[in-house]
Amino acid sequence: MASSSSAPQVITCKEALVMEEVEISPPQPLEIRIKTIFPRIFGHEASGVVESVGQGVTEFKEGDHVLTVFLGECMSCKMCKSGKSTICQVLGFERKGLMHSDQKTRFMFKGKPVYHYCAVSSFSEYTVVHSGCAVKISPHVPLEKVCLLSCGVAAGIGAAWNVADVSKGSTVVIFGLGTVGLSVAQGAKLRGASRIIGVDNNPRKCENGTIISSPSYSEFIFQHVTWSLDFTMLVSTTAKAFGITEVVDPNSCQKPIAQVIKGITDGGADFCFECVGDSDMLTTALESCCDGWGVTVALGVPRLKPKMSAHYSLFLKGRTLKGSIFGGWKPKSDLPSLVEKYMNKEIQIDDYITHNLPFDDINKAFNLMTEGKCLRCVIHIPR
Amino acid sequence: MASSSSAPQVITCKEALVMEEVEISPPQPLEIRIKTIFPRIFGHEASGVVESVGQGVTEFKEGDHVLTVFLGECMSCKMCKSGKSTICQVLGFERKGLMHSDQKTRFMFKGKPVYHYCAVSSFSEYTVVHSGCAVKISPHVPLEKVCLLSCGVAAGIGAAWNVADVSKGSTVVIFGLGTVGLSVAQGAKLRGASRIIGVDNNPRKCENGTIISSPSYSEFIFQHVTWSLDFTMLVSTTAKAFGITEVVDPNSCQKPIAQVIKGITDGGADFCFECVGDSDMLTTALESCCDGWGVTVALGVPRLKPKMSAHYSLFLKGRTLKGSIFGGWKPKSDLPSLVEKYMNKEIQIDDYITHNLPFDDINKAFNLMTEGKCLRCVIHIPR
Repeated sequence: MASSSSAPQVITCKEALVMEEVEISPPQPLEIRIKTIFPRIFGHEASGVVESVGQGVTEFKEGDHVLTVFLGECMSCKMCKSGKSTICQVLGFERKGLMHSDQKTRFMFKGKPVYHYCAVSSFSEYTVVHSGCAVKISPHVPLEKVCLLSCGVAAGIGAAWNVADVSKGSTVVIFGLGTVGLSVAQGAKLRGASRIIGVDNNPRKCENGTIISSPSYSEFIFQHVTWSLDFTMLVSTTAKAFGITEVVDPNSCQKPIAQVIKGITDGGADFCFECVGDSDMLTTALESCCDGWGVTVALGVPRLKPKMSAHYSLFLKGRTLKGSIFGGWKPKSDLPSLVEKYMNKEIQIDDYITHNLPFDDINKAFNLMTEGKCLRCVIHIPR
Repeated sequence: MASSSSAPQVITCKEALVMEEVEISPPQPLEIRIKTIFPRIFGHEASGVVESVGQGVTEFKEGDHVLTVFLGECMSCKMCKSGKSTICQVLGFERKGLMHSDQKTRFMFKGKPVYHYCAVSSFSEYTVVHSGCAVKISPHVPLEKVCLLSCGVAAGIGAAWNVADVSKGSTVVIFGLGTVGLSVAQGAKLRGASRIIGVDNNPRKCENGTIISSPSYSEFIFQHVTWSLDFTMLVSTTAKAFGITEVVDPNSCQKPIAQVIKGITDGGADFCFECVGDSDMLTTALESCCDGWGVTVALGVPRLKPKMSAHYSLFLKGRTLKGSIFGGWKPKSDLPSLVEKYMNKEIQIDDYITHNLPFDDINKAFNLMTEGKCLRCVIHIPR
């Protein structure tokens, strides 16, 4: 559909993890091509600068700074217009690795298609996303920080604010103290929760009250996706600053963790959050919240066993189980307000970034992950 | 503890199902003995007249008209004072068949204890309940009607109003069209739901749009409880009056019921209610509500398989699963307002009562149930 002589052309660039040159198609109608010369972090969390735009794109122009979002927002479907959902019917969660519009890919390698990941494909110097999957932000905002709002930090804060609606003075339990879990903690702390108990199974945590590391991570596995990885790991010291008041290590407990939590919370927590992606942990979270009004929120994406089970009576006794894949935020409508809160120092992001590495060292970042030595490692792509 | 000469003494009376004379102990401190000379309905739903009171009872006196409630309300525990729970920590759901206060029974038969059921034990001419398990009502209120507010009708209406908070114009699906399900329908209709779809597997239903019968029922099985039964069955014609706009019969569907519901509701219902007590049906209900904001409420008490399972992604996509055992009502605090609504003709009860039988014919009522010929059958005990 590139109809004019100045239309964007195919380009080649490097992509992780094999660091090969691949061809990047021009943006098709309503799409934009982004030169991700600015930093971004592993997985689908990314920020960048618009390199070119496809037909019909009026919201973006070359040079605009953007956050990418794995959930798009078309602004006109039943879900977008409902005011109640973040799952756009048109640009919602993409599982096939193809562009929403024409079910094709914009990446080619040696003549064969390479598939997208979560509508973003951010492990590449350039990527093409639907204009509904990008959020324009001011050029004054540090892209190398707010890229974390593209998924994990926004998901965690939103789970506390939008999904659970954590109340002042409440008791909160967070299962999994990676970036997502610690963002739930930040959100709960800002809401005035009085106790924020972290549950994590890393034996090195909690020395002198300081959590050292947390190996929770979730990996997305998709058909046709050459690589796909998201992870969160915690290294030392910052958990308390994000609001964690106590830590429970399941490995050192003599009783089932739900019993332990009930014992220290007078019958159960007001709010529980599952940030690991473990179906059995979700059941444990539900069991750990109190009769009557306990709310459990599912955030983690399960890698292995996608079905959770729970005793029917947990619900009859008044518990609620709900979840969200992006913290209940409408990506395009709501993210600008979170960026503004960051700029006003109302929320913090910087301390989740424990490492920064150049794009060529992306495999070192993977090692940091598998060794449990990072929270978020931001990958910087050279200009 | 009967310390004065005028203190209540042991009495004997008939109890179902074996219709034997049993001894009924005097009420102990904070308890009341009720002569159930007025009608009541099978199970734990009952109304009656206070026969005597134990020490410390100030709220009731002999001759007071009462509704019994299987969930008590002590008014002073953490849960009662929370304003958010109906599960009293002191007088909550009683599973052992013993009085809350001293963990003993007030019934004796041939020198051996007979256990209580759901803190009410209403299949008896007399019963002893904790004063926190009774609600005083005006003597002008027809006990033989409002006894249905003691459980099923209140639970159904409350599920729609308090638990789900059904909104105007919404689409509602109700699994199981017994009295509870039809009370959800009444509640949803009064909230202005635009479509109220009933799902029931009785092949005789839905002739000329009229539902004929519905064999959903749930049976409580408790250790030490000699009998325990609650049931709801639907006979002919009234479903529409309660608000049902459409009926789906799973047996006549070629596809899984969740797919059928999604197909006729543009992707899923706003609210689903499980009123059967079937764990797999609860999963189906959850799958039948929409992404983004779909709410499923569990009301049915499962007889067989107490664990439900659900795909994790159902929650990540924004669904909520919650439940209630008594419609989110605080029994003593809230029931009087429902009685008042009935007297003001703001809610209807009478049409759920398809049969009336004397106590001696209680086994005929069981036959009505097993033959699928009644909704609620009120049992009248002679004065």
